[in-house]
Amino acid sequence: MLGDMPSAGIVIIGDEILTGKFVEENAQFLIGELRALGVELRRITVIPDDRDDIAATVRDASARFDHVFTSGGVGPTHDDVTIAAIAHGFGTTVYRHPELEAKVRGYWKDKLADANLRLADVPEGSELVYGKDLVWPVVCYRNVYILPGVPSLFRRKFVDIRDRFRAAPVTAARLYVDAEEGELAPHLDAIVASHGGVKIGSYPRFSETDFRVLLTLEGADPSQVIAAYEALASRLGARVVRREPPHSVG
Amino acid sequence: MLGDMPSAGIVIIGDEILTGKFVEENAQFLIGELRALGVELRRITVIPDDRDDIAATVRDASARFDHVFTSGGVGPTHDDVTIAAIAHGFGTTVYRHPELEAKVRGYWKDKLADANLRLADVPEGSELVYGKDLVWPVVCYRNVYILPGVPSLFRRKFVDIRDRFRAAPVTAARLYVDAEEGELAPHLDAIVASHGGVKIGSYPRFSETDFRVLLTLEGADPSQVIAAYEALASRLGARVVRREPPHSVG
Repeated sequence: MLGDMPSAGIVIIGDEILTGKFVEENAQFLIGELRALGVELRRITVIPDDRDDIAATVRDASARFDHVFTSGGVGPTHDDVTIAAIAHGFGTTVYRHPELEAKVRGYWKDKLADANLRLADVPEGSELVYGKDLVWPVVCYRNVYILPGVPSLFRRKFVDIRDRFRAAPVTAARLYVDAEEGELAPHLDAIVASHGGVKIGSYPRFSETDFRVLLTLEGADPSQVIAAYEALASRLGARVVRREPPHSVG
Repeated sequence: MLGDMPSAGIVIIGDEILTGKFVEENAQFLIGELRALGVELRRITVIPDDRDDIAATVRDASARFDHVFTSGGVGPTHDDVTIAAIAHGFGTTVYRHPELEAKVRGYWKDKLADANLRLADVPEGSELVYGKDLVWPVVCYRNVYILPGVPSLFRRKFVDIRDRFRAAPVTAARLYVDAEEGELAPHLDAIVASHGGVKIGSYPRFSETDFRVLLTLEGADPSQVIAAYEALASRLGARVVRREPPHSVG
């Protein structure tokens, strides 16, 4: 946890991801978005289209994180159970929202199939969140933003409302080091012990030509990141072959 | 849940994934492997390098699924806390395994850094699982296979031991349909109601030229999948523009 950064969790709902029918794109997209917004992503969970699993997973994420984003299971067919599952998880009921029902009827007009009206169903007590797209809002129950699984729609809807999540940017830095992790460990231990507000990561790479370990530093307070970066670079001296000095992300 | 298929969960441990420093590759790889092995993947969780979070998440997955695979957090630096966390989660201790210690000492010889000996640490009670690679085994605690996060190592180690997970292959089929989901919903409901052993998925696509919805069918029993496939294809008639008849996966 980095200082007072807001936290987030992502729940990807979809048999199609777990069985490899489609490659996961929505969490992958949100990772970069949340990073740039200064929101700390703390968990991604990919689960099946199963009511009880969705209910328990979303309720748990809602209690732990400031913002929760779900992907998938919001269409008109039998395998779309996200709305009912979230309602169940919070002990509320499914409610056909009049504002959404009017939009659904207006969109399909005389071609409306009965099943399409399920697109107007929300957990009772949901808020409709509008961004610049005044036609289709995002359904939000408490701190849970319920987004569609089709990647183009997921992205469009998130981008439309993302400004409401913007927080202070994180400060990050990198050192690319030509040494083994075993040799670096005592130096890292010393910096970690003396720079509590900075998160330090150590990542060995075996396919790079000029470095063996990537060291990353980041934190909410720029001055703490700068101090840790300078102290670590100074300890490692000529072992550092490349660097990215502290900079604001996003 | 598909009949008696063995189940699996994946726990990806790594701040570097949640902050977008590296793209997730290991769960993505295992999805295809488990699918081909006839193992039903039921959950992927991506969590930070945090002892309590790892302990609770792995313990939960171990109780729910037949096989659990973890990725990451097993190196010699301060941010490698997976072994201690799993030991903590199961109420056991960290143990320096003599067989692994001998391998670590033999590998580094007089270049051994103290921190490298952490690579010989396992949760007390772990089994060393050997495949064809007789040098480095996989550490397994109960049903939890503890794998490294570096993708090339993760893949090599999993492939080395994968035959022990092989089960009966799933049977799958596809129908590509030129219709909207709202129109398909009642047909799908009818087939779902009469073919309980077959899982049916409905996926709208907006960027394809010849179809609007992909319908997938799969199950452990080939004859049930064939029956559901034929019943559904017959109901949809000329709406089906392409098809993949039932076939064994893997």
